[in-house]
Amino acid sequence: MQVNMKSVKVLAPATIANLVCGFDVLGLAINNPRDVMEVRLKDEPGICIHHKDEHGLSTEPSQNVAGVSLMAMVEEVSNAPGFEIIIDKRIKPGSGIGSSSASAAGVVVAANHLLNNRFSKEDLVRFAMAGEKLASGVKHADNIAPCINGGVTLIRCIFPLDIVRLTAPPMYVTVVHPQIEVKTSDARQILRREVQLKDAIKQWGNIAGLVAGLMHHDYGLIGRSLEDVIIEPVRSILIPGFDLVKKRSKEVGALGGGISGSGPSIFMLSKDENVAKQIEYVMTEIFFALGIEFKTYVTTVNYEGVQVIESSDASELPE
Amino acid sequence: MQVNMKSVKVLAPATIANLVCGFDVLGLAINNPRDVMEVRLKDEPGICIHHKDEHGLSTEPSQNVAGVSLMAMVEEVSNAPGFEIIIDKRIKPGSGIGSSSASAAGVVVAANHLLNNRFSKEDLVRFAMAGEKLASGVKHADNIAPCINGGVTLIRCIFPLDIVRLTAPPMYVTVVHPQIEVKTSDARQILRREVQLKDAIKQWGNIAGLVAGLMHHDYGLIGRSLEDVIIEPVRSILIPGFDLVKKRSKEVGALGGGISGSGPSIFMLSKDENVAKQIEYVMTEIFFALGIEFKTYVTTVNYEGVQVIESSDASELPE
Repeated sequence: MQVNMKSVKVLAPATIANLVCGFDVLGLAINNPRDVMEVRLKDEPGICIHHKDEHGLSTEPSQNVAGVSLMAMVEEVSNAPGFEIIIDKRIKPGSGIGSSSASAAGVVVAANHLLNNRFSKEDLVRFAMAGEKLASGVKHADNIAPCINGGVTLIRCIFPLDIVRLTAPPMYVTVVHPQIEVKTSDARQILRREVQLKDAIKQWGNIAGLVAGLMHHDYGLIGRSLEDVIIEPVRSILIPGFDLVKKRSKEVGALGGGISGSGPSIFMLSKDENVAKQIEYVMTEIFFALGIEFKTYVTTVNYEGVQVIESSDASELPE
Repeated sequence: MQVNMKSVKVLAPATIANLVCGFDVLGLAINNPRDVMEVRLKDEPGICIHHKDEHGLSTEPSQNVAGVSLMAMVEEVSNAPGFEIIIDKRIKPGSGIGSSSASAAGVVVAANHLLNNRFSKEDLVRFAMAGEKLASGVKHADNIAPCINGGVTLIRCIFPLDIVRLTAPPMYVTVVHPQIEVKTSDARQILRREVQLKDAIKQWGNIAGLVAGLMHHDYGLIGRSLEDVIIEPVRSILIPGFDLVKKRSKEVGALGGGISGSGPSIFMLSKDENVAKQIEYVMTEIFFALGIEFKTYVTTVNYEGVQVIESSDASELPE
């Protein structure tokens, strides 16, 4: 098996889980930021990890999201080769825009490419979910699925996994990442385990409206449906400035938005680039006044998911 | 105002509220049964009601769903004429397939036709909801909206009213109405006011899947999404034979189905007429064995809503 030096480079996009009213089931991929990952085949079995960034993540495969995801894939390959993973993480860990999912999804798409795409996208989601579990303690796919598939995805059911790709109209996405820490596990613990039936009804009316709005390209309906009466009222307390960002973003024309995943990032959708930039200005003003360091992104929906940008000749790869 | 003798005759379809996972927000119109209603203009103000059926419903406008709905409309018409309503109700009251909604929707569409369609469909839903409140004690629109609009409708929000028409592929609908009494108010009272968050998440995953399946014409996804983990487990106890009807209908090819509205009718969706008829046979066998009288319908999705089938010349009507 002469597979040495075969390598592939991918871009793995940031993702916004929940999309306001779709807690644990909806997710959206965006074009910026994206992690850059290179995966190389090695002669000897085993996985080794190098970082080109300063985040100080583990290089021990069993303690690294990319490592665990790839190990899950390797378990299903007989005579598996070894892999070297080089990660240049541009999506800051803990930002709430799918940093761990990008590692998990990026590595399995890249490795699958090196293995002649023998696994389906559903398989890849399954492998990446193993890595995601290391990061958040829970096997969920609402970041993984859009990261691998692009666009907006619905996880209709997690066991058995049922992923639905939804169409979506062109949209701009403005994100602010206040540099505060909100642990996913904490953000999950503060949620009530029971919710009012009347609130649940509102929520499923809104998610149904959002799906219909996305598929009809009905921006008005998308905006009206971006309402969360269950999770946001609890979690937004952890994010200073949240209510003001939302209020003022809508005043300058945002369709709507909310907490990205479990936070602390906040996202807003808009139809026009000009509005998206005004929202960035609003966010900047607010977090500057609060004295909290932050980073903003003005970007668009990513429709392709993890993208292979460089690949060595794969003709001699094992079938 | 020479408006005497102007009249219109309409067909008002039965409707299936909730559609399994869309409690209080989704509804579907079907082609059989349909009420036949005639509405005539009178010279003198006031509303009078006649029944051509044997259901013994009130002829007192304020105690009749059609009467109350029309009174709500008349309140917004200056110099309103009088109306005579002749109802031939083919949708049995208490069947759970939108009998009261058909009265409410039918009369307002007919009267609006006589008034040169001065009101929008949203207005008509609003008037008909006043009548619906008389029947069920609650202002809801999940039967009214599909009865007026046809097809599948989403009530994204009730205050303010936001109705979304969803596209839907051709489908057969098999309905069994066991002749037992389940009062809407009782069926509502046995529901828990709080639900598990994890169940609510399953439910909104399913409603999102159902909306996507309907819009993509993806019968498989529609079938997988027709699951209700919140309402059905509680309400189905009131309907003898429910579990068996569901199990055996799926065995013969039903996409899925459940309780129609608050019951006691049960409905099943299918792609083919042949399957729809096999489901009817399954239902017949089960209720025959249970010794419960019943009625079945094999029908299709109604796409037009309340339909005007006869109309006298309206040229002399007041603007």
